[in-house]
Amino acid sequence: MSNDKDTFNVADLTSALNEDNRADLVNALKSKIQSLAGQHSDILESLSPNVRKRVEVLREIQGQHDELEAKFFEERAALEAKYQKLYQPLYTKRYEIVNGATEVEEGAVKETTPDGEEDQEKGVPAFWLTAMKNNEVLAEEISERDEGALKYLKDIKWSRIENPKGFKLEFFFDTNPYFINSVLTKTYHMIDEDEPILEKAIGTEIQWHPGKCLTQKILKKKPKKGSKNAKPITKTENCESFFNFFNPPQVPEDDEDIDEDAAEELQNQMEQDYDIGSTIRDKIIPHAVSWFTGEAIQGDEFGDLEDDEDDEDIEEDDDEEEEEDEDDDDDEDDEEESKTKKKKSGRAQLGDGQQGERPPECKQQ
Amino acid sequence: MSNDKDTFNVADLTSALNEDNRADLVNALKSKIQSLAGQHSDILESLSPNVRKRVEVLREIQGQHDELEAKFFEERAALEAKYQKLYQPLYTKRYEIVNGATEVEEGAVKETTPDGEEDQEKGVPAFWLTAMKNNEVLAEEISERDEGALKYLKDIKWSRIENPKGFKLEFFFDTNPYFINSVLTKTYHMIDEDEPILEKAIGTEIQWHPGKCLTQKILKKKPKKGSKNAKPITKTENCESFFNFFNPPQVPEDDEDIDEDAAEELQNQMEQDYDIGSTIRDKIIPHAVSWFTGEAIQGDEFGDLEDDEDDEDIEEDDDEEEEEDEDDDDDEDDEEESKTKKKKSGRAQLGDGQQGERPPECKQQ
Repeated sequence: MSNDKDTFNVADLTSALNEDNRADLVNALKSKIQSLAGQHSDILESLSPNVRKRVEVLREIQGQHDELEAKFFEERAALEAKYQKLYQPLYTKRYEIVNGATEVEEGAVKETTPDGEEDQEKGVPAFWLTAMKNNEVLAEEISERDEGALKYLKDIKWSRIENPKGFKLEFFFDTNPYFINSVLTKTYHMIDEDEPILEKAIGTEIQWHPGKCLTQKILKKKPKKGSKNAKPITKTENCESFFNFFNPPQVPEDDEDIDEDAAEELQNQMEQDYDIGSTIRDKIIPHAVSWFTGEAIQGDEFGDLEDDEDDEDIEEDDDEEEEEDEDDDDDEDDEEESKTKKKKSGRAQLGDGQQGERPPECKQQ
Repeated sequence: MSNDKDTFNVADLTSALNEDNRADLVNALKSKIQSLAGQHSDILESLSPNVRKRVEVLREIQGQHDELEAKFFEERAALEAKYQKLYQPLYTKRYEIVNGATEVEEGAVKETTPDGEEDQEKGVPAFWLTAMKNNEVLAEEISERDEGALKYLKDIKWSRIENPKGFKLEFFFDTNPYFINSVLTKTYHMIDEDEPILEKAIGTEIQWHPGKCLTQKILKKKPKKGSKNAKPITKTENCESFFNFFNPPQVPEDDEDIDEDAAEELQNQMEQDYDIGSTIRDKIIPHAVSWFTGEAIQGDEFGDLEDDEDDEDIEEDDDEEEEEDEDDDDDEDDEEESKTKKKKSGRAQLGDGQQGERPPECKQQ
C-alpha cells in the first residue's frame, strides 16, 4: 500500500516555504525533483525491455496530450478574460447607480448634476452589505457591529494576478468613521490554478480610527482593592468580525510548534477563508443585484433545477473505441443509489436552515 | 445577523428529495419559490420609490450580465468538448499499447498479429493499478486484496451527462476471477455545475464470484460447546476496499433518523467519495502515463512552480473605472502575510508525508 519510493519529506519543503526564502524553496524543490527523477528511472529500469519500450511510446503520447491540454488552458483563460472585459461596462453602470453618481429616469440612466434636484437618499443605501448578508457563507461572518462599517462599502472588484498566480479582491470604501484606508485588498496566491491549491493569503492592514477597531474588544477590569494602581486594567481581546478576513490565518514560522489538532484547525480556517474569498469573487461580484434583492438565494440553493438559462450544451462524445464484452448485468436497474444534497464546500446541508448557527457575538464593552 | 425573511426549511426539501419523487420535489420548490418571490417584492416595497426605481434599473443591468454569462458557460463547455474530442485518439492509442492490442517497434506502433511472435508480457502489466497507487488520494483507498482485481483494469473513461447534469466514470475490466461485470460505472448527479453541488452518486452493483467479494470479510466463529448446531457460525462484515467506491454513501430515507454528528460524518464520506471521483476524472484519466511512471507526483505536489508548460496568459484588466482616494497606507509593505501550503480539497498537508496514515487493513479470514 505504502509507496516508500515516492514518499518525500513535505515538512522540509514546508519549512523552506515558511522562511519565505525563494532561493531556499527552489533549492529544496530542485533536490527533491532530482531524487524523483532518479526514482522515475528506477521505475522504468525495473520493467522488462519490451514493456519499457512500450512505456516510452506511451510517454510520447502523454506529451502530445499535454501539449493539447496546455492550449486548452490558454484558450479557456482567454475566453474568461474576454467575458470579464464584456462585464466591465455593466459593473461600471452598477457602481454609478449604487453610489448615486448617475440618476435613473423612466428606466434610463441620466447623470446627476451637483446643482440639480437631489432626493434624500443617494444611490442604493447599504447595497453591498445587504447583498452580502443574503449569502449564507458571508452572513455568518458579518457581526452587527460590522454592519455600520460595511454600509460605507462602495464597490468590490476582482482581478487575476500572475507570478505568482492567483486573484485579488479589492473593497472600495467611502470616507468613514471606522478606518483610514479607502481600499482594502485580499490577495490569494495559488500553487495550482486548475485544482486550486492555496499557497498563501495576504490582506491589507486596516488603519482603524482610535476606539473604532471592529476586530478587537476592550475588556475593563476593576483593580483589586488596596492595589497601588487605582486605574482600571484594560485588556484587548480579538473578536469575531468580517474584517478579520483582511488578517488571514498564518502558519507558525517553525512547523514543529504545531501539533496535529492545531494543523487541522488551521487547515479548516484556511479553507473557510478561501471559501469566503471565492464566494465574493464567484457569486457576490457577478450577481450583486440578485443577492441584494434576494433572487440569488433560490438560484444558489437549487441551482439549475428551475433555471434553464445557463444550461450548457455539450456534445456527448460517448462512443466506445474499444470493443468490450458488455454484460447483461450492467442494467440501470442494478445500480445502487444514494440520494442526498451536498455541497462540495463542506458546509453541512442536512436538516440545516438557511443560516447556520453562530456562537454568540462579541461586543465592545 | 440572522435574516429570517430569507430563511426557508431545507429539511422539507431534503425529505422531498429523499422520496425520489420528482413531482413532490417540483411542488416543494414551486411553493418555496412563490414564497421567495413574495419576499423579493417585499424587499422592493420596503424601499423608497426613488431607490426602488434605481434597483429596477440595476435588475435590467444584471439581466444583461446574466445573458452574457450564459453565453460564456456555453462557449466554455463547447471548448471543453472540443478538446475532449482531440484527446480521444491519444487515449485510444494508450489503450491499445497498455492492453497489448498493438505492439511498438523503434518508437512506432504496429499491430500485433495473433500468429506473430509474442513476448511473455502483454502490453503494460498493472498499468492502471500502478498509476492509481501513485496518487495519494487513491492509494489510501486501495487495499492489498484490491490489487489482485485492479490488475484486470483495462481502461477508465469519463463523459459528461445531461439531464441531470453531472459526469460518469466507466471502469473496463478484463475477464477476471473476482466479478462478472466487464464494466463498472460511477455516476455523479450535480445540482450546480459551476460551483459543483453533488445531488447523488450512483454505482454499479458488483456481481462477485462466490467467495471473491472484496468489500466484505467472513468471520467464522466456533459454535458453543454442547450447542445443537455443530456447524461454525459465519458472519459477514463490511471492510475497506476500493470497490466500496461503487456503493457510495446513502442518506437515510427519513432525515429525522440522523443526528448532527451522523450528518457531518455522512457529509465527510460524500466529500471523500466525490474527491476520489474527481481525482480519477481530472488527474488519472488525462495523465495516466505520468502517474504510472511517477512523474505526475511532483507535478501534483508543486503545481506550476517548476513547470511553465501550462502557464495561462491572461490579459490583466486592472484599470480602475472610478476615481478612488488612494491612501498612502495601502503599500504592499503594510500587508499582513500568512504563509502555508494548503489544498482546497481539505486533505491535511502540514507535516504530512506523501501517503496519509491508514487504519489497519482488513483481510478475509
